[in-house]
Amino acid sequence: MSKYDIIVLGSGPGGYVTAIRASQLGFKTAVVEKENLGGVCLNWGCIPTKALLKSAQVFDYLKHAEDYGLTVKDADKDFGKVIQRSRGVADGMSKGVQFLMKKNKIDVIEGYGKLKPGKKIEVDGKDYSADHIIIATGARSRELPSLKQDGKKVIGYREAMTLDKQPKKMIVVGSGAIGVEFSNFYNSMGTEVTIVEFLPNLVPLEDEEVSKQFERSFKKSGINVMTNASVESVDTSGKGVKAKVKTQKGEETLEADIVLSAVGISSNIENIGLEDVGIVTDKGKIMVNDWYQTNIPGYYAIGDVVPGPALAHVASAEGITCVEKIAGLHVEPIDYGNIPGCTYTSPEIASVGLTEKQAKEKGYDIKVGKFPFSASGKAKASGASDGFVKVIFDAKYGEWLGCHMIGAGVTDMIAEAVVARKLETTGHEVLKAIHPHPTMSEAVMEAVADAYGEVIHL
Amino acid sequence: MSKYDIIVLGSGPGGYVTAIRASQLGFKTAVVEKENLGGVCLNWGCIPTKALLKSAQVFDYLKHAEDYGLTVKDADKDFGKVIQRSRGVADGMSKGVQFLMKKNKIDVIEGYGKLKPGKKIEVDGKDYSADHIIIATGARSRELPSLKQDGKKVIGYREAMTLDKQPKKMIVVGSGAIGVEFSNFYNSMGTEVTIVEFLPNLVPLEDEEVSKQFERSFKKSGINVMTNASVESVDTSGKGVKAKVKTQKGEETLEADIVLSAVGISSNIENIGLEDVGIVTDKGKIMVNDWYQTNIPGYYAIGDVVPGPALAHVASAEGITCVEKIAGLHVEPIDYGNIPGCTYTSPEIASVGLTEKQAKEKGYDIKVGKFPFSASGKAKASGASDGFVKVIFDAKYGEWLGCHMIGAGVTDMIAEAVVARKLETTGHEVLKAIHPHPTMSEAVMEAVADAYGEVIHL
Repeated sequence: MSKYDIIVLGSGPGGYVTAIRASQLGFKTAVVEKENLGGVCLNWGCIPTKALLKSAQVFDYLKHAEDYGLTVKDADKDFGKVIQRSRGVADGMSKGVQFLMKKNKIDVIEGYGKLKPGKKIEVDGKDYSADHIIIATGARSRELPSLKQDGKKVIGYREAMTLDKQPKKMIVVGSGAIGVEFSNFYNSMGTEVTIVEFLPNLVPLEDEEVSKQFERSFKKSGINVMTNASVESVDTSGKGVKAKVKTQKGEETLEADIVLSAVGISSNIENIGLEDVGIVTDKGKIMVNDWYQTNIPGYYAIGDVVPGPALAHVASAEGITCVEKIAGLHVEPIDYGNIPGCTYTSPEIASVGLTEKQAKEKGYDIKVGKFPFSASGKAKASGASDGFVKVIFDAKYGEWLGCHMIGAGVTDMIAEAVVARKLETTGHEVLKAIHPHPTMSEAVMEAVADAYGEVIHL
Repeated sequence: MSKYDIIVLGSGPGGYVTAIRASQLGFKTAVVEKENLGGVCLNWGCIPTKALLKSAQVFDYLKHAEDYGLTVKDADKDFGKVIQRSRGVADGMSKGVQFLMKKNKIDVIEGYGKLKPGKKIEVDGKDYSADHIIIATGARSRELPSLKQDGKKVIGYREAMTLDKQPKKMIVVGSGAIGVEFSNFYNSMGTEVTIVEFLPNLVPLEDEEVSKQFERSFKKSGINVMTNASVESVDTSGKGVKAKVKTQKGEETLEADIVLSAVGISSNIENIGLEDVGIVTDKGKIMVNDWYQTNIPGYYAIGDVVPGPALAHVASAEGITCVEKIAGLHVEPIDYGNIPGCTYTSPEIASVGLTEKQAKEKGYDIKVGKFPFSASGKAKASGASDGFVKVIFDAKYGEWLGCHMIGAGVTDMIAEAVVARKLETTGHEVLKAIHPHPTMSEAVMEAVADAYGEVIHL
């Protein structure tokens, strides 16, 4: 029986990053993977969708070339090639992980792994043992009883990024990041898209002002938006799909070629031996402490299988924290109040910390500042003046409670807020950090200035 | 005689921002402008060039549409419309400043202002007095004796952004931000561009590794690069221009339609009455203390007329500092070691703090980390994998000495380093601030990790 210091079950952005950090720390490490190195993120999530959205963005430039003093004839997309490019990027990244595993001397055990008592994992009939077993099996598209996925007409994100043929009409159920990113992509490609969201706002976890602005932009781009609405049933018996949608005004039937179900995720905690080992789960998640230890010594869990935001960067950070703690390093628990979230639509959304509503509900006396990109010289020059930066400070101690951005490139700008909040900044310090001109990032400084009555360009 | 609390001479990004902050602080304020509100930055600098470069960027997308699975026929630029768009953006911004002046109840005195003793400014024969006079007259394109600008065949940046006709061949002398941005723009438009740089590297103020990468990218894009070279003389007597260029290999003659001189700037300190008032200058700059006071009480100077980097954001910050001090606020002097610099070419460059060479020269024991965008999933998905982030830390106390970036979108990413350095971060804190995945900003975290031997994706 092969013996390791650490075995990681699953090689997504939780698992493979954990394995690399473990190896750096001197542990003999293996990772078990049933399908593709890199997991959903690299193969079926973050990366290939960003590739699709880049094609959509460039296609939008082609369609609006005149706005920039340019001319084109017959701008068109080759749907198959767009998909192919995305798959190529994903494959390249997966090969990159393969290289990293080899470079870090991590054994990759291919096959379906199942936990066994006594700190063992069985893969294809063979047992592997380790001092520490880290569960990082991730998650999959959640299925609603009213919206069973058949992989053909009612699909999840995996099928949505590899369709052979572009649908003419598509219904997207759910407006979290996955739902709106695919809506954006297919709308840009020329598909007629309708989003159905159960809650009153699109991207319902975001600050309400962001959601409202986002809805305006999405409608302007030609996407049909139905909020306070739910799909009650789908009929796939005919040529396309007929979906019964309940709205506040009553029920209506939408027709489409395809329905994309994007109503969240379910953790992969079934059939991995949790029960055999006696690991406690609750509401579909594995229970862990600050160091990702389960109730059974020697078994840990990180990423989408534990409570907290199901995001690649969270999974990576949890895995690093977990193995650094095992190694006896001085580690601090992750601050779940300082996790950024990004949506890569056009306009992009990025946020960290409390929304205005959450801050008020928590009883903070707040200062709110907002700066629209329409007042930014760089945004004007770039033809990207939609959106804004909104900041929320505690009026009493000056703590930066939340930062919410919508607009071009904001997913690369939120890091400033994350780092500054980590360093316990006050508004004044952000304000007096000289931001370069002309950049979109000036909007952060100006939004902070607005919160303190010192905004210049409004 | 009209009497103000504060009069600002010049309405560039130094002057108009100063005036707005002064007005916010309760001062009766006027600004004197001889030409366009917003000064060079809005009308002839930062903003219109960013508009030109955006057209160039979109044109590059058109030319490489196939890389994204898209097809176009006859992609072309309409040079006149590209210029027109840029002028439209500049005009809009200048009108915006006009609006801001009105909104903040700042009097705009149009005309050429000249300082007089007794805290007065004369504009077109009329005297205005103030308790505090702030000189913010900015700078202009520097002229070399060997390269006199005639505005037709030997031009400066102003002419370069409003040419009636696109030149077929262009020589750009100097490879600072202005030189390389115009080189990028004209090359993208189809002009054959040759850059002549006196020093051994392009963008010679940047970290050497950035300069080297930049030169590779520029050459790949088809720009001719001559370093260690200087234009000795130009002959404009024929149809075009003949430039004698001295290189390490000898002398050669280049022919072109136009020569753009981009060899830096000269401060506008002539004919504004400095001598009449007795204000001390040295090496073409007005001498000031930490609060921008000149040697004559009641007279201050900020922006390109004082020593320090001639950048719009520095001018604005200096003006704000100056009037906040006048208002008696608690103010800290500007930390000139934490000023970001940006170049908006493709690839972009952004940097703050010490280069590796400077850090070594200052005697620091350093840790250097570097992360290439070729290892970034977001960069791969975006087709933007050229470039890297490089960070320099003091090995002893962990101070973040410098951050140097080259690649797509880095001008919006440098703010993170500026704010973090302002907050006296250590590398460990940047590393443990969870950066969102997948973003270009992860490269900052990874570069820091590399400096500390903890990089994941290399």
